[in-house]
Amino acid sequence: MNSIYRDATEADLPAIVVLLADDDLGISRENPTLPLVQSYMDAFRAISATPYQRLLVAIDDGLVVGTMQFLLIPAISRQGSWRGQIEAVRIAKHLRGKGYGEAFVRWAVAQCRAKGCVSVQLTSDNARMHAHRFWRRVGFQPTHVGF
Amino acid sequence: MNSIYRDATEADLPAIVVLLADDDLGISRENPTLPLVQSYMDAFRAISATPYQRLLVAIDDGLVVGTMQFLLIPAISRQGSWRGQIEAVRIAKHLRGKGYGEAFVRWAVAQCRAKGCVSVQLTSDNARMHAHRFWRRVGFQPTHVGF
Repeated sequence: MNSIYRDATEADLPAIVVLLADDDLGISRENPTLPLVQSYMDAFRAISATPYQRLLVAIDDGLVVGTMQFLLIPAISRQGSWRGQIEAVRIAKHLRGKGYGEAFVRWAVAQCRAKGCVSVQLTSDNARMHAHRFWRRVGFQPTHVGF
Repeated sequence: MNSIYRDATEADLPAIVVLLADDDLGISRENPTLPLVQSYMDAFRAISATPYQRLLVAIDDGLVVGTMQFLLIPAISRQGSWRGQIEAVRIAKHLRGKGYGEAFVRWAVAQCRAKGCVSVQLTSDNARMHAHRFWRRVGFQPTHVGF
């Protein structure tokens, strides 16, 4: 396990959508059929065009094995502090439980800290009990209710 | 109660910080002393310079009586859907429980919908039981765990 993390390109998008679809909740929400529906491309371009927002991929042996959306949010609260936010983290099913997600998240948190964020926030669907254990293991505390 | 909602200006910033500080959790986190520390100004400028991010104020009788940070987030998940996110909602203490916050939030949610967001998300500190009741009353469901 020696993944490379980088910003996603448009060419990565089909693989990202496959990761999002290969999930208990995602299966009914996503459409990985090629060619991808235009709304995926539009979203990719909107993310790419927005400062402080990144769509990331984890690459292993040349293949996309993980994805994450990563935001830096300037805020007035806490004396004008920046916060990191992590969204839509997915690891390829055959690689889950092997530390790929943990390494990816720890890298993202380090990026947030390097940018001066005082905290990193995320939410996880109440139904994702497995994910909740994952986030605690990586060092996150369930401090908030997500509405 | 007929508040006007608009984007904050730099001149509103002291009043916004007073609102953030006048709060059980905010009192130990904020510094409303004038002149404001530079980090508040820097954060204001960063928010103003970032597309899809707005710092809002509610104005009543010419005074700032409420504030909220408002984000539109493009996402790949849910077939490239946009999400709204609401942060740091505060209403002046003497006006709480009178419907000001509810009207402000309903306006913000309508803005998100008008921009095509499929959902609006927010988190609330576990300690804010009062706020949790507020969010349920305004129509939000506690669907996620916030880390």
